[in-house]
Amino acid sequence: MDEEPAQRHEIGVLMTQMGEAALAAARMLANTDGATRDRALAAAARTLEQRADDVLAANAVDLGAAREKGLSKAMLDRLALDETRIAAMVRGLDQIVELPDPIGTVIAAWRRPNGLLIQRVRVPLGVIGIIYESRPNVTADAGALCLKSGNVVILRGGSESHHSSGAIHACLVAGLEAAGLPPACIQRVPTTDRAAVGYLLSGMADYLDVIVPRGGKSLIARVQQEARVPVIGHLEGNCHVYVDRSADLNMAREIVRNAKLRRTGICGAAETVLFDRDCVATHAGPVLRALLDAGCEVRADAELATVDQRVLRATEDDWYTEYLDAVIAAGVVDGVEGAIEHIHRYGSAHTETIVAEDVVAAERFLAGVDSAIVLHNASTQFADGGEFGMGAEIGISTDKFHARGPVGVEQLTSYKYVVRGSGQTRP
Amino acid sequence: MDEEPAQRHEIGVLMTQMGEAALAAARMLANTDGATRDRALAAAARTLEQRADDVLAANAVDLGAAREKGLSKAMLDRLALDETRIAAMVRGLDQIVELPDPIGTVIAAWRRPNGLLIQRVRVPLGVIGIIYESRPNVTADAGALCLKSGNVVILRGGSESHHSSGAIHACLVAGLEAAGLPPACIQRVPTTDRAAVGYLLSGMADYLDVIVPRGGKSLIARVQQEARVPVIGHLEGNCHVYVDRSADLNMAREIVRNAKLRRTGICGAAETVLFDRDCVATHAGPVLRALLDAGCEVRADAELATVDQRVLRATEDDWYTEYLDAVIAAGVVDGVEGAIEHIHRYGSAHTETIVAEDVVAAERFLAGVDSAIVLHNASTQFADGGEFGMGAEIGISTDKFHARGPVGVEQLTSYKYVVRGSGQTRP
Repeated sequence: MDEEPAQRHEIGVLMTQMGEAALAAARMLANTDGATRDRALAAAARTLEQRADDVLAANAVDLGAAREKGLSKAMLDRLALDETRIAAMVRGLDQIVELPDPIGTVIAAWRRPNGLLIQRVRVPLGVIGIIYESRPNVTADAGALCLKSGNVVILRGGSESHHSSGAIHACLVAGLEAAGLPPACIQRVPTTDRAAVGYLLSGMADYLDVIVPRGGKSLIARVQQEARVPVIGHLEGNCHVYVDRSADLNMAREIVRNAKLRRTGICGAAETVLFDRDCVATHAGPVLRALLDAGCEVRADAELATVDQRVLRATEDDWYTEYLDAVIAAGVVDGVEGAIEHIHRYGSAHTETIVAEDVVAAERFLAGVDSAIVLHNASTQFADGGEFGMGAEIGISTDKFHARGPVGVEQLTSYKYVVRGSGQTRP
Repeated sequence: MDEEPAQRHEIGVLMTQMGEAALAAARMLANTDGATRDRALAAAARTLEQRADDVLAANAVDLGAAREKGLSKAMLDRLALDETRIAAMVRGLDQIVELPDPIGTVIAAWRRPNGLLIQRVRVPLGVIGIIYESRPNVTADAGALCLKSGNVVILRGGSESHHSSGAIHACLVAGLEAAGLPPACIQRVPTTDRAAVGYLLSGMADYLDVIVPRGGKSLIARVQQEARVPVIGHLEGNCHVYVDRSADLNMAREIVRNAKLRRTGICGAAETVLFDRDCVATHAGPVLRALLDAGCEVRADAELATVDQRVLRATEDDWYTEYLDAVIAAGVVDGVEGAIEHIHRYGSAHTETIVAEDVVAAERFLAGVDSAIVLHNASTQFADGGEFGMGAEIGISTDKFHARGPVGVEQLTSYKYVVRGSGQTRP
């Protein structure tokens, strides 16, 4: 009991120091140009390439600890790095370098009848706090996206990926130093103590302009309860595929299989497949058997439970569940309107797709479903900033405020109005 | 003491009913088009024209009570309506009708190499809560802007303007009914009980998508402490005019006089004038005497205090103060860099202007001052959505998150991604 307040005080001192360093770095960053920030990112990419073995070694330490803790297969998949994933991180950094510099862009400009020229100009948000869990690549993506958009960032990764994130962060800092930028532009909380999260949420309003949480329900709930600065929220992805009566059967089978099974641990993975009542007889069997044959568990309503003996019965909870695993809920709805109703009732407003040849049905679905991303004849797994051509992303926002959908470089900016006159006064 | 919990329960029931009605209205509104919403707004404008006498009579009741309470001149100015101000409200409504419908607009569209067509499409935020104080025209502006942008709104005006707001709100409801829209699209809390504010801030997260507070420091502080939904904040406008050594003297005098005195009660009114040390001898005297001659109190630093015997001495507090009255602080700074430093130290990041013929100095000021609106050779009183050509506004946001500067129709929207494919699955 005697140690706790002392330790808390120590973390408070640490976090305040990080906040002060962030403000100082933000002031320096405001006086640099996009080319300098790009040089830092390119140097970070080259460093990450060269240090791939170090990063894999650090990841092996994290994976060993995670297996001992008995983490789920989906969690281990999120945590695991290999040469392919490191190459993807490097490619992500290089892609961010190639993106146009968002800062200083004139988003809109118009002249008023009184001669005033008004411009809306893009500026950084300022200092961003990012709280994430197991996926170590967030360190590279988030750090790079924040720097690209002229922001300073304080990263707080999960304890599971502590060593992996540390090794990746070291590459980013090497890049900053190579470009002559302060290392404090991309800071990482150097402790796994959960008290640091509390400071980020409620003790650093003087330093942080926004917090981006990336994680499960308990983190999100804590953020919503405690945060004293604006949040770009990332709720769960309870994503749906709706198979319309007009769907091409082969396309429906391929899209459902891909949406569910390509990677089960990402937020854009489908968790429920809905069949139009009018195509249960023709489509449900082949689509669900393809999933079952691929090793996916299917939990269905009464009508679909008879399709195959391997099908289990769904409970009410299943419609709400983000499995992040090879499990899918399957139900029957009355056409597009039924699908919209089901999705609004049970979904998380993340990503939903309709498979349909009928364009009228598709357009009704696209207009009627109030989710961050709605698709027609494409897999929900495209819910990804890279796949959208935005470069790497910090996550998919299910908020409607400030940023919705993939959060890339542009979503990490604000704007200001620059007005040029010639002596105008207001009548 | 026995009555309080019962009364609180009653207000809770009332607010929940309003929230449920708002959600139902939002669902109905999603199935209407912009033309219907415009018809409602045009009908509201005509009704407000016809009922001008009713509104003035209601305003007279509010003004009488306000004078009895001894409200300041600035407060009375904010509260007072006359035929000119009602005509301005009507004109504001008509201007909002004329604005293009933001909803459904394709903000951006691009095709990916795999053939996916991605569109970013504008959608409403949902249900907006607006908490404001004395200015009754907010009822018309805010109600109309929310409806134009496809949102449902719950208005909670100040007790000072209760009767005026009620009369204006009745005109809006008449407009909704004329267009066949549910009256619940624009709701007004029918009680002056402050407990209603508490419910809006923390008890209605299931109903509200965003809260917009408009008011003084105590309201803002309460909102920042209690709000459980996103906020579009409107902090004070401690606005600055900086007179550069290169300033045209006549222009400086006219801009300073207009920025301070055109209307002293609005957030874009200048509160501090800063003089470049190199033009104190030439510019400070004429500019400050013009203010003094017009009846403005001047509180200056030591260097400027000798300019005229009517000049008072400023204290440290004056640099922080939003007077909203015929009072101005005046100080000397070392050129543009000194002005930027002073503004960042004392300002509220609302609106600042530079008077200068030197374009290099002006560009440095426009780039270096991190405020929502920065101007060159124009009065700070242009900080206004109408003056920006955005139609009426809900206020000027000093936040960097979601909306900055004038909050008009576009700032009350979100977007979603609509993706059209032909069977694409993710590799």
